[in-house]
Amino acid sequence: MTSLQKPPGPAELQAERQRATFPVRQMTYYLDGGEKQTKLKERIMLQFERDPVWQVSDQHDLTLQEIRERSMAKVRRAAYHVANEPMHVFKQRMELISVLDPGTWTRIGVHYGLFFGALRGGATPEQFSYWAQKGAVTLNGMVGCFAMTELGHGSNVSGLETTATYDETSDEFVIHTPSLTATKWWIGGAAQTATHSVVFAQLYVKGKCYGVKNFVVPLRDPETFELKPGIVIGDIGAKMGRHGTDNGYIQFTHVRIPRSYMLMKHTKVNRNGDVKEPPLQQLTYGALIQGRVAMVVDSGAIAKKALTIAIRYAAIRRQFGLKAGEPETKILDYVIHQYRLMPLLAQAFAMHFTGIEVSRMYEELMDSMETLQPGDKELNDVLEKLKEMHGTSAGLKAFSTWSTLNIIDQCRQACGGHGYSAYTGLASLYSDFAVHCTWEGDNTILTLQGGRYLISCYREAKAGKSQAGGVAYLNNLDKLLNKRCSAKSAEEVSTLEVVEEAFWLVAAQVVKKAGEDFEAGVKRGLREDESYEECSQARLFATKIHSLGYLFHRFKGAIQRSPAELQPILNKLCRLYGLYAIAENSGPFLQYGYFTPLQVDWIRATVTSLCKDVRNDAISLTDSFNYSDFMLNSPLGRADGTAYEAYFGMVQKAHKAGAVPAYFQKEIYPLLHRKLEADDVLELDEEDE
Amino acid sequence: MTSLQKPPGPAELQAERQRATFPVRQMTYYLDGGEKQTKLKERIMLQFERDPVWQVSDQHDLTLQEIRERSMAKVRRAAYHVANEPMHVFKQRMELISVLDPGTWTRIGVHYGLFFGALRGGATPEQFSYWAQKGAVTLNGMVGCFAMTELGHGSNVSGLETTATYDETSDEFVIHTPSLTATKWWIGGAAQTATHSVVFAQLYVKGKCYGVKNFVVPLRDPETFELKPGIVIGDIGAKMGRHGTDNGYIQFTHVRIPRSYMLMKHTKVNRNGDVKEPPLQQLTYGALIQGRVAMVVDSGAIAKKALTIAIRYAAIRRQFGLKAGEPETKILDYVIHQYRLMPLLAQAFAMHFTGIEVSRMYEELMDSMETLQPGDKELNDVLEKLKEMHGTSAGLKAFSTWSTLNIIDQCRQACGGHGYSAYTGLASLYSDFAVHCTWEGDNTILTLQGGRYLISCYREAKAGKSQAGGVAYLNNLDKLLNKRCSAKSAEEVSTLEVVEEAFWLVAAQVVKKAGEDFEAGVKRGLREDESYEECSQARLFATKIHSLGYLFHRFKGAIQRSPAELQPILNKLCRLYGLYAIAENSGPFLQYGYFTPLQVDWIRATVTSLCKDVRNDAISLTDSFNYSDFMLNSPLGRADGTAYEAYFGMVQKAHKAGAVPAYFQKEIYPLLHRKLEADDVLELDEEDE
Repeated sequence: MTSLQKPPGPAELQAERQRATFPVRQMTYYLDGGEKQTKLKERIMLQFERDPVWQVSDQHDLTLQEIRERSMAKVRRAAYHVANEPMHVFKQRMELISVLDPGTWTRIGVHYGLFFGALRGGATPEQFSYWAQKGAVTLNGMVGCFAMTELGHGSNVSGLETTATYDETSDEFVIHTPSLTATKWWIGGAAQTATHSVVFAQLYVKGKCYGVKNFVVPLRDPETFELKPGIVIGDIGAKMGRHGTDNGYIQFTHVRIPRSYMLMKHTKVNRNGDVKEPPLQQLTYGALIQGRVAMVVDSGAIAKKALTIAIRYAAIRRQFGLKAGEPETKILDYVIHQYRLMPLLAQAFAMHFTGIEVSRMYEELMDSMETLQPGDKELNDVLEKLKEMHGTSAGLKAFSTWSTLNIIDQCRQACGGHGYSAYTGLASLYSDFAVHCTWEGDNTILTLQGGRYLISCYREAKAGKSQAGGVAYLNNLDKLLNKRCSAKSAEEVSTLEVVEEAFWLVAAQVVKKAGEDFEAGVKRGLREDESYEECSQARLFATKIHSLGYLFHRFKGAIQRSPAELQPILNKLCRLYGLYAIAENSGPFLQYGYFTPLQVDWIRATVTSLCKDVRNDAISLTDSFNYSDFMLNSPLGRADGTAYEAYFGMVQKAHKAGAVPAYFQKEIYPLLHRKLEADDVLELDEEDE
Repeated sequence: MTSLQKPPGPAELQAERQRATFPVRQMTYYLDGGEKQTKLKERIMLQFERDPVWQVSDQHDLTLQEIRERSMAKVRRAAYHVANEPMHVFKQRMELISVLDPGTWTRIGVHYGLFFGALRGGATPEQFSYWAQKGAVTLNGMVGCFAMTELGHGSNVSGLETTATYDETSDEFVIHTPSLTATKWWIGGAAQTATHSVVFAQLYVKGKCYGVKNFVVPLRDPETFELKPGIVIGDIGAKMGRHGTDNGYIQFTHVRIPRSYMLMKHTKVNRNGDVKEPPLQQLTYGALIQGRVAMVVDSGAIAKKALTIAIRYAAIRRQFGLKAGEPETKILDYVIHQYRLMPLLAQAFAMHFTGIEVSRMYEELMDSMETLQPGDKELNDVLEKLKEMHGTSAGLKAFSTWSTLNIIDQCRQACGGHGYSAYTGLASLYSDFAVHCTWEGDNTILTLQGGRYLISCYREAKAGKSQAGGVAYLNNLDKLLNKRCSAKSAEEVSTLEVVEEAFWLVAAQVVKKAGEDFEAGVKRGLREDESYEECSQARLFATKIHSLGYLFHRFKGAIQRSPAELQPILNKLCRLYGLYAIAENSGPFLQYGYFTPLQVDWIRATVTSLCKDVRNDAISLTDSFNYSDFMLNSPLGRADGTAYEAYFGMVQKAHKAGAVPAYFQKEIYPLLHRKLEADDVLELDEEDE
């Protein structure tokens, strides 16, 4: 339709980019952690774009089996890269794979994250090299999966039913599925990929149960892919998203494995059936945290993708006119559209910086745990940090994944009808991401864990034990809780310092409330676990406010470390993040008296004006996320603004215009050409009843 | 696995049903509007269940084309029923089709709701009988679609680009798509179903534009299904949900239709090109409201489906134990799980009763409009009611569909991992429902319309004009706004009367705030539309609180009309709905001083205790919704509690266990058996850059 009037788009984005108040490329470097990292990301993105294996533009019209076949080809690519590039490059590659193709990310992650992680965390050095030689590093010979959850058991690992019984006569373990609900379920890679599995099972030796341990169980013959005797695996089939990953179920019927296939870094069973349990059980928790940290990072990355699409489209799309006779208004110029998207953009920055910070803390912690031995003088310090990491990451995983799920949905809705098309990418982004709220610990359960941790910190602080890190605000509570915001204007109420103090105070109040509820329960005669249960809602609420504040404090810290030319815009975004969070949750901020009603009105007004302000940089901020068009895979998000042409082109390419449906003769013709007399009245008339 | 221990389930639900505190069957009758209506619903559900055409249990493994073919067969069934049953029976059938198969509901609705609705609303009596004879009632000869939205235009109908130019020489209209963005887009039924379309186009006569009018345009030859000359239709293909509906795009290139194909009930064009415009433009708005009302009703119906699944599963699933050595705890017994689901159950009742009430009001209004003529003495009264209906339905559509989308997602998350399986039904329920937040008016835009209406009511009330219906609380504001809750205990604060007054007062406050912001803008010299734009956020907020309260007031009214034996449980649910809404939005209730911080703490505690109380009736309440297992199509929601067996059975049936993937030789074997020496290091090392 070249002779027709061109759709809006390219000129709009060009004009938007003129408005930038900060150096975009510098922002990219800062977000990525330096120019070198940015260039690495760009090189990997270019590889994806040029490699036919990574093609994604037609994925919405593939069948499940076609998607899985393609995803297997990508697993092969990943195996190649693992063997040929440094770990930090592979890690960066994986982060980008999650943005490009979450289903494949999971399929690769099942082996390299879960199976391989279980070996690293649970195998003795000898066991580790044994499996490495079998192909656990290169996939040359074996691919692993991770059989933890069962049909009847998800979050509660200690309640798993699968058994591993030591048979002294043959020096073997017998792995068995004792009931339908014990069927291993949701096992990624089990249906079509894995030759081996790490299996979580209750260890029984001489009739005694030692709790859940890990066992490597061969599943299939790598030559024929036939199942080993005693093993039944079925495909779990269609799911909401992550179609590239083949989840399956596994039933074991008295399957025998050598004793040496139990991972024995921690608990050991010797030939005589003597069981030796590890001195430091807590150190095995580290692996749990890794997944949570990865999901905080992923939340930021996916939020940035969704926002790039929705904000670029909002700068192109015009709808309704404020003044008769003039062109319609760009939807990004509407107050309400700014309010829909700008606070979420600020939230994405908060999650991004928090992800970086939490990853750093996690890696430091793992390094210090690596060499730790019982009796070391650093032990207590490391255990304290582990406890903080465990408690904090629980709440952060929950609220980051919830936030991003909400961001994706808001972005989809902000694109109007076109957000509902598969080709614009937000629908699958949502369905792929949604599982983050459930796996690696159901979000709600995690908030309760987080709340339990906060209550214990509160009680320690009250007993005089100084708290460090993200809960240091619980020290000197008496002084903190008396503070009130003294701001006399909208300007004064919306500084970083006021927001910071507001979050400290209100987080302290809600944690204190949860702690008091807990203590009151104990005083009434409840057991501790009963009392924790009773104050569940208070725990959830405490974790929510604590986590919102935690993100704010990380964001504020990231501004202080940033180049001077980025500070003004980051400052605006950080204030917007914090003030919006307060406006949306104004209840506790009023209830505990930190702000007056008038101050809350000022805050609301400031959120609106910050939205208008940030809007000027909106396109440049999405540019700074630096995702290529190929990575975004959404015509609405195209960097050159040709949204409508690209969208129309995709739809045209996918479906030949004017096609007569294959079922025309069977289903449509008879409808249009039927004789009405043939329609006898068979319907009962309810009047006759 | 018959020899193994049986999974939990049947006994659990049996025990739950013993706990009912109300007569379940009576509740069903009350919800349905009487025993007769319940029996009609049951008859229709049984027909679906027995008719192979309506089979849905295998739908998650079908391709898009297979789903569409099946859905076409269902359209044929619907056409049969239209011709053979009374309208109220067909209406009931359609409500149930929406619960069973939303994609097919839309495909049928495109003709019978949109196309046929446009004829009824826009055709002269002669035109109406002409199209009826062509098959518009029976689909014997034609099927219609509704071409309103364009690639570049959704919400803003008056900005549509398609033109209909009167050619006096031939007495024809020329329908034309002047640009890419003018392409009709998202047109349900266009891709594979429709022979005709109602087309929205700018009417041009003698060079003058008269705005958007409706034209019937033949699209395809009913004999061959070939496109008519000048018409290009393409398939829009994959979308987030509603796969049964075939959305397409349409481009018209100078397509000629007889003058009589313009719908001329309102605006008329005669042979000479004289245009006669209608005296009462507002009366054409009625059709817009119908869709909104249908979506309020659908929100209740779908929420009940999601909740039945999640709550029944919560009564079966056990996870973690509170006491060592005892069986794990039923998840419905956890405080937090009650808090996740019970308030949503209460919300579903509120939406259900509001849907009934708003439908009734809508039908009464339409009846009175049917015969209305300019100059009638009832005219002003009807126009007032139309204005209220228009304003109120906007906010209700937005907040009901948002609420239900949230309910579905919460229910999915509450089912843990199994919520992510396609077979458990919540994933597709979400993707199918999501479009309700966008079509028939984007929710955010609708809240602004609602806010505009509330501001105008506020200003009228202030000027002394008494307000009726749902905005009557705006009369005597001075007296209302001084009220404060005087409750001295948790019990006193949580009565229906307190909640009612709280919503009146706080709704009045936020409406007043929006009105004052608007007036301040005008005082500053803004035009009215500019000032409305500036106070967008306040308008949205006002509509939110008003709508939450509106639902509460309808629910309270429904209790008063209910049988005495249902009142205790309905009373609890209504209080739970209202108090939860206050707890979740405590900000404005504190900000405007209706409640004190202590009272808000009491409210939170009451919500928790009401959740525990309602939990006793939870299964019976889902039973009262009376959806058959077939309608629910989710193993987790089975009425007999055999969730695990049914789920495992579905998965087993869909996928043969032990199958070797078709791509084993192509993609897996080469990975497992490759020679590592062949992996040359081709990867650039970034250290060299």
